[in-house]
Order: sequence, then C-alpha cells, then structure tokens
Amino acid sequence: MPMIRVEMFPGRTVEQKRALAKALTEAFVTHGKTTPEAVSIIFVDVAKEDWATAGVLASDKQ
Amino acid sequence: MPMIRVEMFPGRTVEQKRALAKALTEAFVTHGKTTPEAVSIIFVDVAKEDWATAGVLASDKQ
Amino acid sequence: MPMIRVEMFPGRTVEQKRALAKALTEAFVTHGKTTPEAVSIIFVDVAKEDWATAGVLASDKQ
Amino acid sequence: MPMIRVEMFPGRTVEQKRALAKALTEAFVTHGKTTPEAVSIIFVDVAKEDWATAGVLASDKQ
Amino acid sequence: MPMIRVEMFPGRTVEQKRALAKALTEAFVTHGKTTPEAVSIIFVDVAKEDWATAGVLASDKQ
Amino acid sequence: MPMIRVEMFPGRTVEQKRALAKALTEAFVTHGKTTPEAVSIIFVDVAKEDWATAGVLASDKQ
Repeated sequence: MPMIRVEMFPGRTVEQKRALAKALTEAFVTHGKTTPEAVSIIFVDVAKEDWATAGVLASDKQ
Repeated sequence: MPMIRVEMFPGRTVEQKRALAKALTEAFVTHGKTTPEAVSIIFVDVAKEDWATAGVLASDKQ
Repeated sequence: MPMIRVEMFPGRTVEQKRALAKALTEAFVTHGKTTPEAVSIIFVDVAKEDWATAGVLASDKQ
Repeated sequence: MPMIRVEMFPGRTVEQKRALAKALTEAFVTHGKTTPEAVSIIFVDVAKEDWATAGVLASDKQ
Repeated sequence: MPMIRVEMFPGRTVEQKRALAKALTEAFVTHGKTTPEAVSIIFVDVAKEDWATAGVLASDKQ
Repeated sequence: MPMIRVEMFPGRTVEQKRALAKALTEAFVTHGKTTPEAVSIIFVDVAKEDWATAGVLASDKQ
C-alpha cells in the first residue's frame, strides 16, 4: 500500500524515472517490509518558476 | 468541505470529467452527508511514464 | 490506476467510509471506464481548526 | 519546514508568482514563527475543466 | 479557487493558525487577484520523526 | 528539490523510518542526480479504515 509521490524539477529522462522507480521500490521493500506489488510511485514535474524557497522562485536563483 | 483529488491516467474527455464530477459529488452527498456546494473535486492527469507499480513504469507494461 | 484522495472534516463513521468507498468506486468505474481493482481511495480527516475559508478557521464559524 | 502547496487556476504571470511567493513566505515567517529559508512553496495550475464544485466543472460555469 | 495546503511541524496554536489563515488569505487576495471567499487553506501537522531532509529525520537533528 | 511524500499503513517504527529516509534519499541521489540536502521526505500514516481498494476498506479485508 505505500503510495510514494515525488515532486521534482522537470528534466529527468524516462530512463532515469525507470531507474528511480526500481530503486525507490527496492528501498521500500527492504526497509519498509512490504512487497514490490504493494508500492505505487507517482512522479510530478514542477517547473522552477513554480517552486520557491525563502520567498524566491527557483527560476530566479540562477 | 470535502476536497476530492483524483489522480488518473490522461485521456478522459471533458464529457467523462463532467459525468465523473456529477457522480462523485452525488456519491459523497448521499453517503457522506454533506451538500453539493461543499464538495470540490480536482482531476490530475498523470502520464503512464510517471506512474509506477512494483517498480515498473506503467508505460513499460504494455 | 485512479488514486482518489478525500480530505474531509472528522466524524464519518466506518460504516459511512465503507459506503463512500463503494459508491465513489462505482461512480468511477461507470463514468471513468476503469475496473474496481484499479481504484484506490484514501480518506484524510482534517480538523475544523485546520481548515480555513475566506481567511477564517472553520472552527471559528460556528 | 513549512511546505506550502497552492493549487489554482492557470493564468498567473511569473511576476504574480514572484509576488505571491514573497508575500506568502513573509506571512508565514511573521505568524508561523519560522525563517524564510525554511519555507518552500509549490504552485500547481489546475485547468477549469479539471476543477469542479457542486458537481459542475468550473469551465461549465461561465 | 486557490487551495493552499500547508504541511508544518506540530506545535502552532489555534491563535497562530487563525493569524496564518488571515495573513495567507490576504497575501493571496492582494497578489493572486482573487476574493477571500475563493481561498481555502488546510494545515497538516507532520511530526519531526516523519519529516526527513538529507536522509536524516528532523527528530534526529536536535 | 525533490519532495517525496510517502503514504503508508501505520506501524513502521522510528528505526524503519530512519532506514527508509536514508535509503530513499540514496536511491534518489544515485538515480535522480541530485544532492542529499536537496531531498525532503514526508511520511504520512493512513489507517486501514481510511484506505480502500476495489471499493473495500483495507480494514475489512483481513
């Protein structure tokens, strides 16, 4: 049943998402004591202009 | 006040979303004892390459 | 794959949650063209002091 | 550590998001007793056809 | 329609949440060009043992 | 900047959460090409009576 939602900057390739899905699932199976089939993962791209820290948009920090 | 957030694969038409909004609201009014005006629903499309189960992207399962 | 997350005021009984889960799933299967097994639902209780509209906590509106 | 997630209709400009990020952070620092660096904000655009209230899509209310 | 969800460490008083709700709503009305009635806010307490950065639980950082 | 939110059944110990936080962060650093400091993780316990699949509460499936 673990539902893992990942918000991240855009730009990861499908290959990276493939590897992330596999590695995050394995990490959860090993340390969270569950089965791979129980683990769901959603990736959500958040543009740098839509993510702020300390009051400043990430797109304004470069 | 119920806030219903639905994450789903892309592809539902506006007509389907219209019908879903109506039916989900009615279900909640009937069984959750609230009023239609209190119910908010958000639909979020999640691409198959962004949704993994058992460590495998949905886009890799076809 | 639809993941439905419902935020609502506390107080619904297990029976109400049971009926809501069944009805929301049926609504999605009928209008969202999916199978019951694909539908996951999470209920999240939000206390009235933690939910504000128009700048006022719901617990202050009674 | 406050993580603020804002779901809103599309259409705000980068300038508005810049001002919102600054103002929301200041509001939190002042009233939530934290530091600007601790505050993260994510903006999520939700199309009017994906947001329903009282069982009706926002895009159908105009 | 803005829906603002705030995840934060536990411990804010009702008075602080009252002030936060007011200030966050005002910030959004001013800079997001909307009305107070359109703004909903949800506060979610997250225990320090449930929040990690750099792989370390916040509860382990004191 | 990756923000990882994990919804799971209650019952994991602090030790398990500690190990999960470490392993999930490492998985992301390795495959998501980021730094440990950029990764935040939130664990959210969801009771079995609040999680349904195929229209049936998890608490009713035992």
